[in-house]
Amino acid sequence: MKKNVLIIGAGGVARVVAHKCAQNNDVLGEIHIASRTRSKCEEIVASVHDMGNMKQDGVLEAHALDAMDVAATVALIRKTGCQIVINVGTAFLNMSVLSACIEAGVAYIDTAIHEEPNKICETPPWYGNYEWPRKDECARAGVTAILGAGFDPGVVNAFARLAKDDYVDTITDIDIVDINAGNHGKYFSTNFDPEINFREFTGTVYSWQDSQWKENAMFEVGQEFDLPVVGKQKAYMSGHDEVHSLAKNMGSPNVRFWMGFGDHYINVFTVLKNLGLLSEQPVKTAEGLEVVPLKVVKAVLPDPSSLAPNYTGKTCIGDFVKGTKDGKPAEVFIYNVADHKEAYEEVGSQGISYTAGVPPVAAAMLVASGEWDVKTMVNVEELAPKPFLHILNQIGLPTCIRDENGDRPLDFS
Amino acid sequence: MKKNVLIIGAGGVARVVAHKCAQNNDVLGEIHIASRTRSKCEEIVASVHDMGNMKQDGVLEAHALDAMDVAATVALIRKTGCQIVINVGTAFLNMSVLSACIEAGVAYIDTAIHEEPNKICETPPWYGNYEWPRKDECARAGVTAILGAGFDPGVVNAFARLAKDDYVDTITDIDIVDINAGNHGKYFSTNFDPEINFREFTGTVYSWQDSQWKENAMFEVGQEFDLPVVGKQKAYMSGHDEVHSLAKNMGSPNVRFWMGFGDHYINVFTVLKNLGLLSEQPVKTAEGLEVVPLKVVKAVLPDPSSLAPNYTGKTCIGDFVKGTKDGKPAEVFIYNVADHKEAYEEVGSQGISYTAGVPPVAAAMLVASGEWDVKTMVNVEELAPKPFLHILNQIGLPTCIRDENGDRPLDFS
Repeated sequence: MKKNVLIIGAGGVARVVAHKCAQNNDVLGEIHIASRTRSKCEEIVASVHDMGNMKQDGVLEAHALDAMDVAATVALIRKTGCQIVINVGTAFLNMSVLSACIEAGVAYIDTAIHEEPNKICETPPWYGNYEWPRKDECARAGVTAILGAGFDPGVVNAFARLAKDDYVDTITDIDIVDINAGNHGKYFSTNFDPEINFREFTGTVYSWQDSQWKENAMFEVGQEFDLPVVGKQKAYMSGHDEVHSLAKNMGSPNVRFWMGFGDHYINVFTVLKNLGLLSEQPVKTAEGLEVVPLKVVKAVLPDPSSLAPNYTGKTCIGDFVKGTKDGKPAEVFIYNVADHKEAYEEVGSQGISYTAGVPPVAAAMLVASGEWDVKTMVNVEELAPKPFLHILNQIGLPTCIRDENGDRPLDFS
Repeated sequence: MKKNVLIIGAGGVARVVAHKCAQNNDVLGEIHIASRTRSKCEEIVASVHDMGNMKQDGVLEAHALDAMDVAATVALIRKTGCQIVINVGTAFLNMSVLSACIEAGVAYIDTAIHEEPNKICETPPWYGNYEWPRKDECARAGVTAILGAGFDPGVVNAFARLAKDDYVDTITDIDIVDINAGNHGKYFSTNFDPEINFREFTGTVYSWQDSQWKENAMFEVGQEFDLPVVGKQKAYMSGHDEVHSLAKNMGSPNVRFWMGFGDHYINVFTVLKNLGLLSEQPVKTAEGLEVVPLKVVKAVLPDPSSLAPNYTGKTCIGDFVKGTKDGKPAEVFIYNVADHKEAYEEVGSQGISYTAGVPPVAAAMLVASGEWDVKTMVNVEELAPKPFLHILNQIGLPTCIRDENGDRPLDFS
């Protein structure tokens, strides 16, 4: 049994994590939240109290922390007595925070692969570049490190594992589809950190096809999907973390990720990319100032967390899994539908932050209970999916299934 | 008689000015070229020699100068003995360079209104904000200051005056149309300094209609024009310097400026503007760096002078002037057609730089000869147009006329 959670980060996802941890502080214990700017953490703490989201009286505390500083992070972990760290700061921090968790001997949970500021879309599998080489280190230290425990990656990995366990014994295709059919009412905005969002789409699109890595350009391969609730939606094959672990762990010759984009998004993205404004490499202005164009684009775009109050509509994210079951063709779509407005009313965030922030809290609850406290590094599909989906069912992200037997909520009875 | 020319600036237009001055150094005397970065001036000097553009042996010299520094500019004027300054540096320099010319008692020629870095599209008439308030100062000092002596403003002002002198005695409408039907082969580029280019289009579009200032948004009012050589072209009512002086000096109740834009330009412009990337006001990145978005856009776009080698096609810029002549309806289109490739072959620049850079040299030749050495501040339409157009006819920018009597070169006989 582990307890007390340190949340690293103070953006839209961190806010959801804090609210959800507070709603489950009977299981999780003390909640600490730390980022470079302490006032952002304090604002989140205040919002948790304002919305009455503390399940029971307890500690909910804000801290200033530069999480690139491993010693400072270790010190904060020790000072607070946290045994679980949920890292939802920028993806550039991951390896530093993992180092701190290993040194302090506490559990680590993140929601996205580690990135280096000056590199994008490195060699596949991406987890092989930074995370997996440290698995032995985690095992030796008996440290549980759960990688990519957001929605995608995260819940969609559990969906794939559930499909394999119960619906399709020999898998040929895993197609993960992420559609945001919401409307934020702005000319343009990304739904999470623009820097991370655009970095996802400026590099090579890696997919796993015929049991090998295949390279495409962004927006090169598009397909229409007919989905529950959100209907027919155009999505494009995109690079995404989970493809890189599912390709290794699921034995499926095909793993692809599809992200929904409207024509307007594609137009804005294409203009910015072609002009060089999405580059992570610095340019020099005529006045001699060195600046990374992508960071300026981020500075002019709306703060994704500011979208929440006016965001309407729904998201649908799920896995089409195809293959055979008992020798016969089988196909299943396992998915979740979330609502932007409901998310805002519950925790003050929009649906994209909500779907990303609730799952690592469910993971933390399973680490706390011991069920997922595996004392080594794992991706989510290596863990039993049902306890995870069961908690998510209870804390705001219910799972549904659509197959030849109809479209229905997943039955946990 | 004045002689010896100091060119301020080392961009694409300055290059044309230098080459054209060199081609006419029998009239103009010594040629000096100065900018912050002396190596850029040296590169221009070398290109003049390489292309054999010195008409006769003489001085052609590069200097380092911060033209915001009035004392330094006065010192350079005195040291070089220049009696004519052609200011084709950034529009932010104009008032400093004018101050230096007044102090040194030499002639001043520019090609665009003065701008302050943090302001765009100030109250009309624009010349009333910085230039015209200094007219008395010029007159008292006996200093010739010719404002806006590029193509537009500049030659188009002379076209309007020519129309009034010879073709339309009571003018009702002056519509200046600027079409670039060239192709530079890049995804996107502005044809001159992106910072100045975009600043033209981000603010209010001021036009002079029914003898008063009217405000529109950019791309709000569009119209198709059928022009010689370049054919039917869509153009949009835009703010432009010459509207602000012609409205005062021509007695026409309507003065409008129309700039041709393709759908692709408008799309890129619209995306950048709506995102806030064309703003001249600084933003702060997440890392705390203060940066002006427009300067970053400038940094990622192609250097306009780099377009020249592959630029093909033609420009057509001219004035539709409408009204009555001897009591009967009259209409004339006075225009020039320039060719990007021919410009490059002659002076190593593309056509937009060429049309902007040749006219101030013609103006300098008229100041040198005394014909335009008026010893006060003037806009081009206040000066006799024919000597100007006659020189331009000889040095690369011939004038044509289209009216009820046909489409023909302007006759100077």
